[in-house]
Amino acid sequence: MNIVIAPDSFKGSLSASEAALAMKKGFQSVYPDADYTLIPMADGGEGMLEPFAFKKGMLPADIKVKNTYGDEKTAKICIDGHTAYLESAQAVGLPDFIPEELNPIQSTSYGVGEMIRYALDQGCKKVLIGLGGSAVNDGGAGLLEALGARYSYTEEIEGPVTLGRLPFIQRVDLTTLDPRLKEIELNIASDVNNPLTGEEGATAIFGPQKGVRPEDIHVYDQWIAQFAALTAAEWIDSPGAGAAGGMGFALLAAGGRFSQGAKLIGEELGLPKAVQKADLILTGEGKSDRQTLYGKVAHYTAQLAAQHQKPVILLSGSLDHEAEELFNLFKASFSVMHSPCTLEYAIEHAHTLTAKRAAEIAKLIQLRV
Amino acid sequence: MNIVIAPDSFKGSLSASEAALAMKKGFQSVYPDADYTLIPMADGGEGMLEPFAFKKGMLPADIKVKNTYGDEKTAKICIDGHTAYLESAQAVGLPDFIPEELNPIQSTSYGVGEMIRYALDQGCKKVLIGLGGSAVNDGGAGLLEALGARYSYTEEIEGPVTLGRLPFIQRVDLTTLDPRLKEIELNIASDVNNPLTGEEGATAIFGPQKGVRPEDIHVYDQWIAQFAALTAAEWIDSPGAGAAGGMGFALLAAGGRFSQGAKLIGEELGLPKAVQKADLILTGEGKSDRQTLYGKVAHYTAQLAAQHQKPVILLSGSLDHEAEELFNLFKASFSVMHSPCTLEYAIEHAHTLTAKRAAEIAKLIQLRV
Repeated sequence: MNIVIAPDSFKGSLSASEAALAMKKGFQSVYPDADYTLIPMADGGEGMLEPFAFKKGMLPADIKVKNTYGDEKTAKICIDGHTAYLESAQAVGLPDFIPEELNPIQSTSYGVGEMIRYALDQGCKKVLIGLGGSAVNDGGAGLLEALGARYSYTEEIEGPVTLGRLPFIQRVDLTTLDPRLKEIELNIASDVNNPLTGEEGATAIFGPQKGVRPEDIHVYDQWIAQFAALTAAEWIDSPGAGAAGGMGFALLAAGGRFSQGAKLIGEELGLPKAVQKADLILTGEGKSDRQTLYGKVAHYTAQLAAQHQKPVILLSGSLDHEAEELFNLFKASFSVMHSPCTLEYAIEHAHTLTAKRAAEIAKLIQLRV
Repeated sequence: MNIVIAPDSFKGSLSASEAALAMKKGFQSVYPDADYTLIPMADGGEGMLEPFAFKKGMLPADIKVKNTYGDEKTAKICIDGHTAYLESAQAVGLPDFIPEELNPIQSTSYGVGEMIRYALDQGCKKVLIGLGGSAVNDGGAGLLEALGARYSYTEEIEGPVTLGRLPFIQRVDLTTLDPRLKEIELNIASDVNNPLTGEEGATAIFGPQKGVRPEDIHVYDQWIAQFAALTAAEWIDSPGAGAAGGMGFALLAAGGRFSQGAKLIGEELGLPKAVQKADLILTGEGKSDRQTLYGKVAHYTAQLAAQHQKPVILLSGSLDHEAEELFNLFKASFSVMHSPCTLEYAIEHAHTLTAKRAAEIAKLIQLRV
């Protein structure tokens, strides 16, 4: 029997590979002789590097880049041969700050551009970058600047561009962009389809969680619109341009191509082929609810399984029973829970709970009545 | 497919029949054409009447009896033809009182004797009585008195005998016991094996939860020992004599026979025969832990299933994962939980949670890989 185990991370408790190993442990106690293919997954958000590091059997490298507010920080990246796996939140992640520290005007995506430049310097021909969980809202101006774009200001300015500096930009020169960008495949993993500006744009929809006050949304949106018009007007309304505070726009302008995160990463990790050969697929995530339906790992894995008519089981930290249409996608769905308990208890014991529940699931599958 | 569903009650949330119906609902959504045999179960403690009422399709009758402290209360009993099903806690149940109200000296098991007498008056030839959860600690003196035993006191006394009156008893006459007792089958369902007195006796072991202060244990134990010596010395050390504050002793003296509660009730409800014909058995309870191993419904059902080599699945409110040896008895064990949550939430949503989890279990059983 060929069992493919492809969970997302259980946010806050298990990384994707830890979740996969726990599930395998449980199954192996019942099916010791089955073939197990572990493909820990990600959707481009937090935890995107780990599945690649797991698959390639390597440790992510540390590089120095600018964080959301221009200070130096260490970001992890994975480079495998000529391919770089980058997670924008490693440079400009929202979890780096408490809400009181958020200051959108000072935010810059410069560090993400530095990560891409580093990959180019390493000779990479392919970059897979995950957008998600960023604290930035600069229209992607910082990212482009780090990649060589030149901005002419109405007054002299030092240091990287920020949201607050956008209104002072008179002219944008993209001809100075790193020429190596034209020779690489730049893949963007994201599950955001919003345009750059307007009512459904980056600032209006994602600004508030990054510290944008409601009364400032309109002004910031105008600054970004003006910057974008000077930069690459044709990408402003593209789906995904509004991802990661406008980094979507910047990456499109730099020649990038958007894909649904889980699909892009799954294909990179060989999940479709593994599913094709599988007798049974296990997936899971911290919390399964309606959000899961919007391109998350569990949803993508269920779609793959359906394509190949393979049974797929969901084992998550928690299930939101309201999301009936989600659970219909799986042969069966279980939570790892064994008892009423606090979230803290569940997080602390996530590995044991997951392994035990996986074992019970395996026992039931074994049952013939 | 023949599916037998035989859960105990989920204490505090679902009666045994509610639990069985929820499990059936879930299974039926996957196996609409299976044959379902529902045998809600009990072990002689709280909730013992419900399975019989369910099986016979009748409502328990209300009768007036004395409660633990001699006040009138309504107790439910089931009479089916010539058989009476009695639950001692209906008359003298511990849940009737808050801890501050407990007063062991004033306690009497008289009301339980009244229930048996009522059954005799109705022409019953067989009485099945469940001991468990009583607030009484009178050595069973009240029960015997209600059935006709006569006590001669050193001073004049009115009203039923209580623990506090035992030391004043000079002589016990059992020849006045209701003669119909000799003509009936009196079955006692209990999972208590303690003798009446001594270090493992009723007062020492169960007294404290009924309000006996540690410093009073020895004195009360002596009172009961003295009463028992005058009554039926041969039963003092019998296993179970210490059940329900000494009602075990009294029932033995009245010709009763002890059985493991779940086994006695299971046989009365036809569970062994049903298991023999089953393709699959479902059981469950509120909380499965090491206690379950001591003659609880889930344990008994697992034993029956093992005898007939039938697969049995445990679906409980919560599982204590420490109790490995318990879970080894089942083909698989699951909690109804879908998420970390409070006990209150679990209790409130117990029916839905149980039905949903049963459906997922059924889907897995259906899976062929």
